[in-house]
Amino acid sequence: MNGAESLLTTLVNNGVEVCFTNPGTSEMHFVAALDEVEGMRCVLCLFEGVLSGAADGYARMARKPASTLLHLGPGLGNALANIHNAKKGHVPVVNIVGDHATYHLQYDAPLTADIEGIARPVSHWVYTSKAPGDIARDAAEAVRQAGIGQVATLMLPADVSWGDNPNGPEGRVAVAPPAVVPAARLQQALALLQSGARCMVMIGGREIDGGRGLLLSRIGKAAGARVCTEVFPGRVARGAGTAVIDRLPYLAELAIDHIKDIEHLILVGAPAPVSFFAYPNVPSAIAAPGCEQFVLAGPNDDIDQVLEDLLQGLGAVDVAPEVQPLTLPDLGAGPLDVFKLAAAVGHFLPENAVVVDESITSGFALYPATAAARPHDWLNLTGGSIGWGLPAAVGAAIACPERKVICLEGDGSAMYTIQSLWTMAREQLDVTVVIFNNTRYSVLEMEFARTGARGGKPGPNAASVLDIGDPDMDFTAIAAGMGVQASRATTAEEFNQQFAAAMQAKGPRLIDAVVPTMF
Amino acid sequence: MNGAESLLTTLVNNGVEVCFTNPGTSEMHFVAALDEVEGMRCVLCLFEGVLSGAADGYARMARKPASTLLHLGPGLGNALANIHNAKKGHVPVVNIVGDHATYHLQYDAPLTADIEGIARPVSHWVYTSKAPGDIARDAAEAVRQAGIGQVATLMLPADVSWGDNPNGPEGRVAVAPPAVVPAARLQQALALLQSGARCMVMIGGREIDGGRGLLLSRIGKAAGARVCTEVFPGRVARGAGTAVIDRLPYLAELAIDHIKDIEHLILVGAPAPVSFFAYPNVPSAIAAPGCEQFVLAGPNDDIDQVLEDLLQGLGAVDVAPEVQPLTLPDLGAGPLDVFKLAAAVGHFLPENAVVVDESITSGFALYPATAAARPHDWLNLTGGSIGWGLPAAVGAAIACPERKVICLEGDGSAMYTIQSLWTMAREQLDVTVVIFNNTRYSVLEMEFARTGARGGKPGPNAASVLDIGDPDMDFTAIAAGMGVQASRATTAEEFNQQFAAAMQAKGPRLIDAVVPTMF
Repeated sequence: MNGAESLLTTLVNNGVEVCFTNPGTSEMHFVAALDEVEGMRCVLCLFEGVLSGAADGYARMARKPASTLLHLGPGLGNALANIHNAKKGHVPVVNIVGDHATYHLQYDAPLTADIEGIARPVSHWVYTSKAPGDIARDAAEAVRQAGIGQVATLMLPADVSWGDNPNGPEGRVAVAPPAVVPAARLQQALALLQSGARCMVMIGGREIDGGRGLLLSRIGKAAGARVCTEVFPGRVARGAGTAVIDRLPYLAELAIDHIKDIEHLILVGAPAPVSFFAYPNVPSAIAAPGCEQFVLAGPNDDIDQVLEDLLQGLGAVDVAPEVQPLTLPDLGAGPLDVFKLAAAVGHFLPENAVVVDESITSGFALYPATAAARPHDWLNLTGGSIGWGLPAAVGAAIACPERKVICLEGDGSAMYTIQSLWTMAREQLDVTVVIFNNTRYSVLEMEFARTGARGGKPGPNAASVLDIGDPDMDFTAIAAGMGVQASRATTAEEFNQQFAAAMQAKGPRLIDAVVPTMF
Repeated sequence: MNGAESLLTTLVNNGVEVCFTNPGTSEMHFVAALDEVEGMRCVLCLFEGVLSGAADGYARMARKPASTLLHLGPGLGNALANIHNAKKGHVPVVNIVGDHATYHLQYDAPLTADIEGIARPVSHWVYTSKAPGDIARDAAEAVRQAGIGQVATLMLPADVSWGDNPNGPEGRVAVAPPAVVPAARLQQALALLQSGARCMVMIGGREIDGGRGLLLSRIGKAAGARVCTEVFPGRVARGAGTAVIDRLPYLAELAIDHIKDIEHLILVGAPAPVSFFAYPNVPSAIAAPGCEQFVLAGPNDDIDQVLEDLLQGLGAVDVAPEVQPLTLPDLGAGPLDVFKLAAAVGHFLPENAVVVDESITSGFALYPATAAARPHDWLNLTGGSIGWGLPAAVGAAIACPERKVICLEGDGSAMYTIQSLWTMAREQLDVTVVIFNNTRYSVLEMEFARTGARGGKPGPNAASVLDIGDPDMDFTAIAAGMGVQASRATTAEEFNQQFAAAMQAKGPRLIDAVVPTMF
């Protein structure tokens, strides 16, 4: 058994059964091993930014890591932005990065690069395997590291891949369970909640599932505290039957106002809230200067347990949560806009759908319009780096083949990783992509004003850089070129019909929704 | 004058007059400054991998750096692969990477990353500007560093950009001239060439212009030495009137055979030749074990001078070079293949064209078919990271608006940075893109065999990962979706007609050339 086969076997033994890849010469023995080792589904993507985003979306939905297989430093570089997003979202990922044979590095061939150097800023754990006899052990360690909500990046030199591994593969390794929050810290939080001060519990972390949301709602009611989620939770259960929970607004000005009266902000898996960017004359911290921020649990701690314990500690096991009823928005008519589009999404969203949201400014109306839709999971961009939505939808669809995936995507961000459409077609993934085609970097038009640059008014050169409508993009043509069935909607009636049909059908489909910009 | 304005002014003062960009919030004051400072052409690209490749292509043709403007760590990550290519090609590039305001970094906002860490593996020089009063000086230093054939990456925190710069911009800085090769080293080379031993002079570096090629040819004739270029020179003048010079073959097995008799390999701007990848049982070094490799000049040394001095030293100023006559290939007929396609390119290539070659396996026939075509410049992929060709064509066309740019592009590599087509349409660049659509990662099919993995025969899973024909891509649809006029050719007659028409017309055009794979 060569190194690559022992690596693959170890991954499969540990439940890592999907590999998103775009390989090169140095990874050919890994590719060859796909026919020697059973149990690994290999998904080809035409660009590495697609596959790293897919690994993120997969892991969020499968609740376990996928692997990536990347070609040397530049392949890792291409994947970097979506690895960054996964890292910020505490998403487990195992990256396997092929390198030249160990003895070949001294020759500084054209593709030689400092791969560890590229990996470190976006990985919690980075390691270069040294010998074929080590690679299975190293892969097992990568799985252990990823399992606790981390990005593990393992370099696989070509000779480690092709050499004989006398030690064979590793079996199942133990991944550390989430840490239980110490009792003393729990008591401090209870004391705050029972102090009579104005408290808010903010939840975040890898996932806010239905159970956690309901627990949080009950805690809030029992303690008379406000509850909310972080701005962009990685995965959150929403819709009818889930708890009514605010989310912190994106815009710093609104977020600061939203929690200005809070005296104690209790953080459960969420980081202390901060402005996404710095602006002249806007504070970086969202909490009021006098607010005490108390970290009750980190993102990888045992959040179920701490919520249960809080509820128990409040003596509130009988308190009922505030629950969303099923309320479907009415459909709109006439020229399409983001509100009518959002209404249609909320109206037709099928039960158990997975929504991948990278709609940026066009999505302001989506969250409210779907709050009481049929129950679904919602995935957000956790690291702020655009080009995540289409890839994440690929990964989510592979993790959950029985669930409809809806990808709500800005036109600008769609173009970052548009190659995702090809993998959707190739794998016949059940993804409906909605492009909010407003021909603008609309968020930057807003941000230009917020930064106050040039008095908030872009001149002609600046305006040109924020305008992606010259030429207009025709996403139906682009999709067709990659084998995805597509249609265009300019009226609410067209969108309603096309979206409803897509919800009924199986397989990849794209709707190029022409909407006015929000600004 | 704020930091951004002083930065832009400094760049313009130093002849850096094009900025390829995809900005974000942290760069809005730079974007605003585009309307306050004259002389900077800002070119929007829909993905950072496009703009870094464009900066590379621009600098090769303009013989001076462009700047990039990148959004934080992930934007730099997206640009990384083509920065890697530029670095390997000794191409001058000035990267400006926006960062959060200095005081905002402590809050670890979602887009916060170790930008310097990401930059270092692909940059010769990395620096984070500390204050608005420093930024002009720092930009001047970046220009100085880039000017000597390097990648300079300067981080621009948002508050450095928006703060007032009391020191104002910098004027023109002195860039160090290429180093003159020491006389003693030249004498050693002359002694080798006159020793009667079998010598080869291999040339590389930033550019092999017509003059250098002719000098090299004369040196070879005078000394009775063989001459050749490195495998992938960054820019080389070719066609009628240029010198007849071999290039070292790509395949290590062929390259080793090509120079197996050479006793002294004299390197002028070229690195010691090595196998692109390691393979079991193939040496990494191309030169025979007994061959002495002598570095006469590095890539950024004064190559013109050293070639002149060699010729003088050989007492051969009267020796004439071996020069390519004008010989246009005959056109083919019937089903299209890469040989007929290459013949048409050679036949119709207009004088002074710029050819950007990322045709990978499909291009094996191109180099010979164009050797005696009308005079042109040929750009090669210097760092081995695919997705370079379309962006480099964007940059070359902006550097040379009066010259026809022909981008010869594999289907697999095209999909890496397909967003380039949009910038070609937006800027109405005079680029003809030819996609070699063979529906395969054909190079990897070849490389699979060369690595000997699984006896050189991919099983069904491996074969599937090398096959990009399911679904087939329709590049005419993809191009139309981004505003580029496109056609498809499946016969030689169709290709001949379409390519000839494209050579006569101005503006962006794409030919989706359906060709069988080479293997």
